[in-house]
Amino acid sequence: MDQLQELKEKLEEFNKERDWDQFHSPKNVAMALSVEASEIVEIFQWMQGEESFELDADEKDKLEEELGDVFLYLQLLASKYDINLLEAGKKKLAKNREKYPVEKAKGSSKKYTDL
Amino acid sequence: MDQLQELKEKLEEFNKERDWDQFHSPKNVAMALSVEASEIVEIFQWMQGEESFELDADEKDKLEEELGDVFLYLQLLASKYDINLLEAGKKKLAKNREKYPVEKAKGSSKKYTDL
Amino acid sequence: MDQLQELKEKLEEFNKERDWDQFHSPKNVAMALSVEASEIVEIFQWMQGEESFELDADEKDKLEEELGDVFLYLQLLASKYDINLLEAGKKKLAKNREKYPVEKAKGSSKKYTDL
Amino acid sequence: MDQLQELKEKLEEFNKERDWDQFHSPKNVAMALSVEASEIVEIFQWMQGEESFELDADEKDKLEEELGDVFLYLQLLASKYDINLLEAGKKKLAKNREKYPVEKAKGSSKKYTDL
Repeated sequence: MDQLQELKEKLEEFNKERDWDQFHSPKNVAMALSVEASEIVEIFQWMQGEESFELDADEKDKLEEELGDVFLYLQLLASKYDINLLEAGKKKLAKNREKYPVEKAKGSSKKYTDL
Repeated sequence: MDQLQELKEKLEEFNKERDWDQFHSPKNVAMALSVEASEIVEIFQWMQGEESFELDADEKDKLEEELGDVFLYLQLLASKYDINLLEAGKKKLAKNREKYPVEKAKGSSKKYTDL
Repeated sequence: MDQLQELKEKLEEFNKERDWDQFHSPKNVAMALSVEASEIVEIFQWMQGEESFELDADEKDKLEEELGDVFLYLQLLASKYDINLLEAGKKKLAKNREKYPVEKAKGSSKKYTDL
Repeated sequence: MDQLQELKEKLEEFNKERDWDQFHSPKNVAMALSVEASEIVEIFQWMQGEESFELDADEKDKLEEELGDVFLYLQLLASKYDINLLEAGKKKLAKNREKYPVEKAKGSSKKYTDL
């Protein structure tokens, strides 16, 4: 079965059981998504770039949990507009291939302020 | 084939071709993720909750594109630590089932400040 | 005495005593600023617009504390580049007066996606 | 005259002229604040910590403008609850002095995940 479809249905069931759809306007879900994204940022905020590759076990567990949160809200928001996340990701990647052709973008972060 | 695995590999190829891994410390990817999440928030920021269900076609295209961006960075960050997003999402959902039992959480947003 | 100058000096003393300047690259301070801004968002995320005018005493205390945090990081970041926050605010307001002339902007949020 | 009071009054006049208070629920202003904070993050996102001390003239102008934006929304949100930003900042700094005593916090970012 489609993996994202399965997650989507589980999420719908979870929220229906709790009667939480009333709080989940796209606006509110977008806010919650950004709050959870910031909890990921918080893990890394005082580290040097190199240090951020070396999370200890507790920090890695925290990261996994926060990635899970962001993913759940991302799927919930996509569901509100029947958007398939995987298709949206692939489409954006195709667009980025055009926007940042290899010969121009290679090795430069200047080219890409908004991947 | 595993859908997320496929996206992960496409992303790796994309970044390898452009020699962009050098910019993609987990710290930097986390920052980019939060910046893209804010671009979703920006779509909805001046709307009422109800209005946010009624995006016009241009706004919906914009939303799809930004959801794609967040998903790409989310997958990229997960890849840095070999975390499976789908597993992380399911694990978090199971945790939330315990944290917010139906009989206590039903119809109340108070119970849940940090889904 | 200049109020912001006083705060700036107090902050410098605070960080010097703790030997914390080593963590405060502009990049890191920007991250911390956005994390604190999200803690403000979190207070309001499940409320309707109207409800957000009616915080209870605890929520209001929380808001004041988070506003304080954002302000401290904002001043700290401005100090890194000798930018006067008050001047920056006034300059931006003047720019907005030109960008959103009264006769065009009146009553419309469409005009203003990026105040 | 009180500098922040002056900015507060200018902002009120600006919004009144445009009839924009209708869009400025505390919830919406909090969202806008976080969106602007992310625009600051965007300036620094692909830089190393050290590089972030060396913005060029255009980037510095951009930083000043975005700091101005964040400051305006911060003041606007504070005004909604009659909170004095300067007092809020000083109060938080005093609290941090207690939370992070010099002898414990010196030179360690571990002590401080949420200044």
